[in-house]
Amino acid sequence: MIDETLIAQWRAIVGTEHVLSMPTELDAYAADAALQDLPPEVVVRPGSTAEVAQVLAAANVFGASVTLRGAGTSLTGGAVAIVRGMVLSLERLRAIREIDPYTSTITVEAGVITGDIDRAVAEHGLFYPPDPASLEWCTIGGNIAVNAGGPRCLKYGVTRQYVLGLTVALMDGRILHLGGKLLKQATGYPLIQLFIGSEGTLGVVTEATLRLIPRPLVWTTALITFPTVEQAADAVTTMLTHGVLPATIEFMDDVTLRYAEDQRFIPPGTMALLVVEHDGPNDAAVRGPMAHVAEICRQSGATGVHVAPDEATRQHYWALRRAASLSLTKHFSKKLSEDIVVPRSAIPTVVREMRAIGKQYGVTIAVFGHIGDGNLHPNILFDSMQPDRLVHVAKAAEAVFRLALAHGGLLSGEHGVGVVKAPLLEE
Amino acid sequence: MIDETLIAQWRAIVGTEHVLSMPTELDAYAADAALQDLPPEVVVRPGSTAEVAQVLAAANVFGASVTLRGAGTSLTGGAVAIVRGMVLSLERLRAIREIDPYTSTITVEAGVITGDIDRAVAEHGLFYPPDPASLEWCTIGGNIAVNAGGPRCLKYGVTRQYVLGLTVALMDGRILHLGGKLLKQATGYPLIQLFIGSEGTLGVVTEATLRLIPRPLVWTTALITFPTVEQAADAVTTMLTHGVLPATIEFMDDVTLRYAEDQRFIPPGTMALLVVEHDGPNDAAVRGPMAHVAEICRQSGATGVHVAPDEATRQHYWALRRAASLSLTKHFSKKLSEDIVVPRSAIPTVVREMRAIGKQYGVTIAVFGHIGDGNLHPNILFDSMQPDRLVHVAKAAEAVFRLALAHGGLLSGEHGVGVVKAPLLEE
Repeated sequence: MIDETLIAQWRAIVGTEHVLSMPTELDAYAADAALQDLPPEVVVRPGSTAEVAQVLAAANVFGASVTLRGAGTSLTGGAVAIVRGMVLSLERLRAIREIDPYTSTITVEAGVITGDIDRAVAEHGLFYPPDPASLEWCTIGGNIAVNAGGPRCLKYGVTRQYVLGLTVALMDGRILHLGGKLLKQATGYPLIQLFIGSEGTLGVVTEATLRLIPRPLVWTTALITFPTVEQAADAVTTMLTHGVLPATIEFMDDVTLRYAEDQRFIPPGTMALLVVEHDGPNDAAVRGPMAHVAEICRQSGATGVHVAPDEATRQHYWALRRAASLSLTKHFSKKLSEDIVVPRSAIPTVVREMRAIGKQYGVTIAVFGHIGDGNLHPNILFDSMQPDRLVHVAKAAEAVFRLALAHGGLLSGEHGVGVVKAPLLEE
Repeated sequence: MIDETLIAQWRAIVGTEHVLSMPTELDAYAADAALQDLPPEVVVRPGSTAEVAQVLAAANVFGASVTLRGAGTSLTGGAVAIVRGMVLSLERLRAIREIDPYTSTITVEAGVITGDIDRAVAEHGLFYPPDPASLEWCTIGGNIAVNAGGPRCLKYGVTRQYVLGLTVALMDGRILHLGGKLLKQATGYPLIQLFIGSEGTLGVVTEATLRLIPRPLVWTTALITFPTVEQAADAVTTMLTHGVLPATIEFMDDVTLRYAEDQRFIPPGTMALLVVEHDGPNDAAVRGPMAHVAEICRQSGATGVHVAPDEATRQHYWALRRAASLSLTKHFSKKLSEDIVVPRSAIPTVVREMRAIGKQYGVTIAVFGHIGDGNLHPNILFDSMQPDRLVHVAKAAEAVFRLALAHGGLLSGEHGVGVVKAPLLEE
């Protein structure tokens, strides 16, 4: 139980209206995208870095448990208070402090929505590439906590590659200012790197300065179907060893495709579909490489290579990929979304063995994701929340993780470990 | 003095012929590209990770001082034993262990020469982008120690962006295997990041797995002259906010140009020259963006915009930039090469104030470098090694560093801190 004296201190720091303890208020903080029905004892919503630091210092004195929360989009239970205690919500830290086109940087508070960052810099001709699927809801603080990725990370790299500066409040109330607007540095220990991807366990990121790059002005997108996963994987390796680095190479397996609403582009017998996109400053810059991709895919045995002739078709291709997760939930009432990363060479085997796991535990497993990075999202699908079913689902999930580990992979490419995968971290 | 018992232990570990203690042998390890005449007491040359670990463990027991050395190309005294003791040379760790086109990775020992890495992967259509000026001599271990950069890092990022896995021997003899072939990861603390850029002070990197990207197949290069540094800096910012990300944007100031042998492309009154290069998979992909660059530079007031019509001319442009350092040493017998990084917006002021510093201390300062990153190499030029001259040179160097710090910059963009800049690190 959190001490009333501590709660009074928090009220004095952030203002009474920003310390929530009514059950109805707490319910709004009881779930993330993985777990639910876990309300904290109290929610504190500081309005500045200084307030965050003071709130933490007070919690530290009392030994209170603190769980950080951005927008609550964590797919691994990272934003819910499994041990109860206090949830520190960064929702009020949503100022865009500065856009500096002369250094190609933006400085934002941790609660700014990732998609808003890219929109804010667009008018300056700049671009913030990392694009997690929750782009329109998730916050940059959460992205930094898990070193988030997304489809564009094949060409552009993950969140870590864009973090130049961080303001971090430590548990004892100290405030660190790490890095800044410099685009390169080789001076002193790279402490800033430790705070990226450590899921808030070392300190609370309250502000970040991000590197921006020139905004691409033109896109071209192809949808390509293959009779086997092996052929799709071969095509990807051939592209990446023949001078072609697309912005994205997205993958959908046959199970995912079976439940897609739009079946227009999927010939019978398709076991793998790729969505390949190039971006650049002008038409010539993207058309050349796309012709190259089409040729490579045909030689690798593609049954269909469709380069979008117009923007509407391009949007259809992306809708098919983006709706992958939603289409599955229309056919199955429950879905456990996972996130593994394996060496790209292991992908055909891993997808095949996923079928065996599904059979063994009586669940359906659909796989899609960022094949260029070796980052796959196996989705375990089931209909019933009966305890005996859930045991099978949990066992299937564990088998999926072990499969990744057995192939030199890891438990998370971009969602983080959170509490869901924590028991497996040691391995 | 190093204990004879310890030396005997090292002999037992690496073999007698790999423990050097004759003065003539030690002289070969007495200098790097910054300091000279500092021979160590003994040089140990282990032949494997296990030997490195055992050598360190023995040194640790005796409290012996250990200085790491790759190829000795450090520009900051990082490879010489200023406190004497032992130099641990990684020169025998030069195996390329594996090139894996299916995961786009290469695994190499720490003593492999950086340029050899890129040559080894070229036949697989792959590319290792970081290109420090010492490319043909420096080793990958040293590059990782200082998080090295180079001209191509504007588009492709620095060494850190390419390190996926490291084998590290700690001072107490433990061996860490961090990361691997995975292209993305969001699992556990990013400990591997701490070893990149910490200049060997936390452990000895003995092996690295590096990420490779598709090899560009076509290049186009332009040489562009401006009447002021401000106009050149403006052109760079305009490029980077109009969809254009060149592979490199290199800068040379008027002092550097004055001493260039090839004056063909430099009209009178030129205060700044840019070398801009695009690379890509085919002609169309590079020609479009280069036309864009030419237009932007003309609008920014460029006096000459020359896009190389053929490979020979392209090589002339690069020869001019690459010879910058050498041309200066032909006119001045001594040269102190520095490496600062400042926010790009501060570049015109910093270059101007460099002139004032030169005047104040009676030295010539030539500036060139990677303007797109804000990473400049001020070269302090002088002729005499008389003690009173050297005092002025040292004061000028300190003023250059303080100038960088005053503009929100840092002491090193890519060379590291070493021993030369260590006294200023606290600031």
